[in-house]
Amino acid sequence: MEAQNELCVTTCDRMEKILTNFKFIVQYDGTKYDGLQKQGNTSNTIQGKIERVIAEMVGHGVEVHASSRTDAGVHAKGQVMHCKLNTEMTAIEIKKYCNKYLPSDIAIVDCSEIDIRFHSRLNSSKKQYIYRIWNSDVPNVFERKYMCTVENTLDAHRMNEAAGYLLGTHDFAAFFTNKRYKKSTVRTITNISVQRNGDEVQIACEGTGFLYNMMRIIVGTLIEVGHGKRKPEDIIFILDSKDRANAGITMPPHGLCLEKVEF
Amino acid sequence: MEAQNELCVTTCDRMEKILTNFKFIVQYDGTKYDGLQKQGNTSNTIQGKIERVIAEMVGHGVEVHASSRTDAGVHAKGQVMHCKLNTEMTAIEIKKYCNKYLPSDIAIVDCSEIDIRFHSRLNSSKKQYIYRIWNSDVPNVFERKYMCTVENTLDAHRMNEAAGYLLGTHDFAAFFTNKRYKKSTVRTITNISVQRNGDEVQIACEGTGFLYNMMRIIVGTLIEVGHGKRKPEDIIFILDSKDRANAGITMPPHGLCLEKVEF
Repeated sequence: MEAQNELCVTTCDRMEKILTNFKFIVQYDGTKYDGLQKQGNTSNTIQGKIERVIAEMVGHGVEVHASSRTDAGVHAKGQVMHCKLNTEMTAIEIKKYCNKYLPSDIAIVDCSEIDIRFHSRLNSSKKQYIYRIWNSDVPNVFERKYMCTVENTLDAHRMNEAAGYLLGTHDFAAFFTNKRYKKSTVRTITNISVQRNGDEVQIACEGTGFLYNMMRIIVGTLIEVGHGKRKPEDIIFILDSKDRANAGITMPPHGLCLEKVEF
Repeated sequence: MEAQNELCVTTCDRMEKILTNFKFIVQYDGTKYDGLQKQGNTSNTIQGKIERVIAEMVGHGVEVHASSRTDAGVHAKGQVMHCKLNTEMTAIEIKKYCNKYLPSDIAIVDCSEIDIRFHSRLNSSKKQYIYRIWNSDVPNVFERKYMCTVENTLDAHRMNEAAGYLLGTHDFAAFFTNKRYKKSTVRTITNISVQRNGDEVQIACEGTGFLYNMMRIIVGTLIEVGHGKRKPEDIIFILDSKDRANAGITMPPHGLCLEKVEF
């Protein structure tokens, strides 16, 4: 038995040695895709597209892991992924190859070799999302796929005040939809702000982890505050209630973008 | 005869009275369209889409005139159009109606009543175009439809120096493709500059009139200067030659945008 275990360890070691771990910073326009993660039959996902190009490049099946499983229609400017490859190619060559063969709405902004133990999802410490709202009755032609239009004027100051109540560690059960989820819904928001720049209102939120649809429900709730339908301090009551029915609507995905991931 | 003429004038006057002239400032993402102007069988033009919505609104056929006949794939942030309508609607109501029924890649940014004699093309005094180049080997995911990618590094200072030779009134025959055109090819460029902002190089050009493809051939020629294949002062020789073969390639349309029109 001991001899067998030893053999196994040696074989695994050898396997490990020929694999190199690569870290990717990835941008994508999520408009056309069924989200980040491969699921069931659809390969129309960011993960599916990237795995296909990399597998073709190295000649073996690969699994790409992402820091954040963005939903269908959500974009990313700084998604982080990792992938273990058996290849002689340098990081620069890999980046060049991928950008040549990936569709024009997915790009590898950076590729680097990284410690074999690095895991893009398990090792991430913080993520920042930005939700962009186009607050005008004149459509935005050029950024229509990256902003959600809200016609009636929003009071960004009130929204920012309301956002302040979300800062810190709370049970975000009211800002979450999955009823079958049995784990803790406590999360920490380390930074959140609402700012107006001309006709655009941006909600930037940084946290150690996000529940399914959490960011989009937060935005839907802050919009009700911005329209004067709720008071900023209502956020305290909504959090305390832990009841999804008390929060605002889930905003559409196309205004949302994963800006960066920290480790 | 005199009586008949008088009758005609009176009828025309009446016609004139019931028509109101409207000026529109229009933005569009030209990606999907066969250019601005209706031509032959295709109604897949900016003009075609706008005329259809306005005709439906007022209940009579309309003709929309634009300051600049942008090509297929070219965008506009400040295209100016005018159109005479028999309607009781206010400019604000017209703008609202149009933005509701136009496709999401065309928007009426502004609509106002204007003197019945105003003509968007004939009265325009200056136009400004901007050509955007993405100068990087990493694809730009979010603005890929509004910039043309050039991978090798461009020297924007050299390009700007070359652009200086185009300033003023010249015969631009070398920067023009239509051989059957028999009118004057003399035009005046009142302002031209090349600027780098990070990985983006922008060529802004303002002039009293532009020949067919002129802006895109200017950009193709300046890029050769930016890559060191030509000297900035070669522009003098190219202008003097009046020979299209001496200028650079016609750059793709999607980097080009009509920024504004002056009257």
